[in-house]
Amino acid sequence: ARAAGAPALVPLCASCHGDQGLSASPMIPNLAGQQQGYLSNALHDYKAKQRQGGSAAMMIGLAAHLSDADIAALSAYYASLKRN
Amino acid sequence: ARAAGAPALVPLCASCHGDQGLSASPMIPNLAGQQQGYLSNALHDYKAKQRQGGSAAMMIGLAAHLSDADIAALSAYYASLKRN
Repeated sequence: ARAAGAPALVPLCASCHGDQGLSASPMIPNLAGQQQGYLSNALHDYKAKQRQGGSAAMMIGLAAHLSDADIAALSAYYASLKRN
Repeated sequence: ARAAGAPALVPLCASCHGDQGLSASPMIPNLAGQQQGYLSNALHDYKAKQRQGGSAAMMIGLAAHLSDADIAALSAYYASLKRN
């Protein structure tokens, strides 16, 4: 479910990272309350194919479709979610 | 400060990732309450020089000194910390 004001792409992220940014899989990181600059950096690195390891192959494919504005909105959104 | 029962290497992690796994820098990820398998995977990937992006150069250097037991202990410890 996409909360009011959440970026349009959030349901895509939620399919792996969980409805509120809390993942149901031990192999997939929680995003809720994560540091905004770290999230932004990670998405930009994936988009530039400069981040490797873990699920990078999937994330590189997804991030290729993100604009700078998408990355800014998603990073701010997940950083703003409560960690608990 | 290293809590009772915390792995011996925790103070090293804490110098960037924060005393309770909550980073003081927007560019450095929080570790508290992160998924255990994700943390373990990331450290093993760094140790194998197969994780790139962000602060990978530093993390590859640090992870080179970690045993499999160190990685298991650190991953379990940070996954166990409260996220809030």
